[in-house]
Amino acid sequence: MRSSLIAMEVSNAKNTVLWRGSAAIDGAKEAVAYLRSLGKKVVFVTNNSTKSRDTYVKKLVGQGIPASIDDIVTSASACAAFLRKNEVKGKVYVVGEAGLAAEVTAQGFENLGLEHNGITEVPQPFTVDPQIGAVVIGLDRAISYYKLSYAAVSILNNPGCKFYATNTDATFPVDGAILPGGGSCVAALATAVGRQPDAVIGKPSQVLLQTILSTHNLDPARTCMVGDRLNTDIEFGRLGGLKTLLVLTGITTQEEMEAIDNDDQRPDFYVESIDAINQLAK
Amino acid sequence: MRSSLIAMEVSNAKNTVLWRGSAAIDGAKEAVAYLRSLGKKVVFVTNNSTKSRDTYVKKLVGQGIPASIDDIVTSASACAAFLRKNEVKGKVYVVGEAGLAAEVTAQGFENLGLEHNGITEVPQPFTVDPQIGAVVIGLDRAISYYKLSYAAVSILNNPGCKFYATNTDATFPVDGAILPGGGSCVAALATAVGRQPDAVIGKPSQVLLQTILSTHNLDPARTCMVGDRLNTDIEFGRLGGLKTLLVLTGITTQEEMEAIDNDDQRPDFYVESIDAINQLAK
Repeated sequence: MRSSLIAMEVSNAKNTVLWRGSAAIDGAKEAVAYLRSLGKKVVFVTNNSTKSRDTYVKKLVGQGIPASIDDIVTSASACAAFLRKNEVKGKVYVVGEAGLAAEVTAQGFENLGLEHNGITEVPQPFTVDPQIGAVVIGLDRAISYYKLSYAAVSILNNPGCKFYATNTDATFPVDGAILPGGGSCVAALATAVGRQPDAVIGKPSQVLLQTILSTHNLDPARTCMVGDRLNTDIEFGRLGGLKTLLVLTGITTQEEMEAIDNDDQRPDFYVESIDAINQLAK
Repeated sequence: MRSSLIAMEVSNAKNTVLWRGSAAIDGAKEAVAYLRSLGKKVVFVTNNSTKSRDTYVKKLVGQGIPASIDDIVTSASACAAFLRKNEVKGKVYVVGEAGLAAEVTAQGFENLGLEHNGITEVPQPFTVDPQIGAVVIGLDRAISYYKLSYAAVSILNNPGCKFYATNTDATFPVDGAILPGGGSCVAALATAVGRQPDAVIGKPSQVLLQTILSTHNLDPARTCMVGDRLNTDIEFGRLGGLKTLLVLTGITTQEEMEAIDNDDQRPDFYVESIDAINQLAK
């Protein structure tokens, strides 16, 4: 079992643990290098299901943080691994974007969904491929009534068809606005089929944590979750028995953290930014 | 105050109070004619927000049931009347179909939404018309991420912007399948904005009933709701203090009705079909 892990939030929200807008946070690359020099495994974690892990590798490398695809876990890659681990039979219907479809393909599943983008007519009678054994849904900015219908009818009409969500984040911050997140797509489908997903993969769900721990053979007692959001990142670490470190460069503000009235919701540690880790090296 | 009303469910579900598929139910036109001969006002009610009231007039007339636009109340027409009654200021953003947009226009509101059909790119920064004072949402088979985003940002960023749903039916039965209903669209938006609608208009909401009663000056104590679905039609009538008559030609089966274990959910009367009313004339 590896000595320890630092899992870090790297969503493509504007401000997060490692970057602020498109710029790296001062000291971020040095902090990651320092942790690695101590023999710690650093895993980069995000609930974003729309981008491939390669995209994150490129972004990290571009900011001077060496990374390979195995260092990255997204809600899409963990969802695809979960399909494999749960021995899903048949094809997979994807209501999501290219990053999710690519991960499902990489796990060996024939999948459909992307090729339905742009279909505006719902034929009657409405039928679906009877071989679809699971529907996976995340943020899909090409969502349509046809795709929602196809997913709903697969779940309702195909015996044993599973229903998995990559994540249930309600919103997705972009420049100047808060837009609907994966949770909005999931809510539409859950309402149509009259039940919640059989599993939600992303933070704070422990499905994602178990995927990370087992993939990298890590000991939760010697692992720290570093995140910028109390109700996903820190909750995720707390539920899994990890130590938790909140950084104040992202979503949660110091005021919000100090306003916590339940000790159970407080991170073990907090720092202004990831740069604080470099102080330990001095 | 008019002596009484019979409000009848006329959704475009396959089987309902007045038709089964595209065929009229035997005795339906005679039953309506008989009730009218007794001086009773018959109002035709549906939660379907996608079709214009004219469409229902044509369908009824085509089946030998004389009807004018004022005899029809849809969740769309009632929603538009509700906007007017609540003195909504500014423009209205419609996540819905042509029937809803037409009703909103008919109430004098400048509205947008339909012209956003087919937009696939979400620009950044994302901005909305600051004059939008209300978002109305129902079943929209041209729903898109752009329209959901436009609606969400209007609600979140425009001070005082109202959020109304025509109806929250989870599903919509079509030939051979159950497809997502207006409730699915509403759930997506409610999740994104982090709150439920300020009002839901359609059955079983009493907003719709109040619209009917006040428009036609009717006494609820002398009014009967005739419907084919326990959890919308019959609930709607019960909540409003109307008498209720369940017909078994639509969604609810005799077995389901007999399985009710709570007296409060039972209709006052039930008959196999609307044709039973003709027995009263003999």
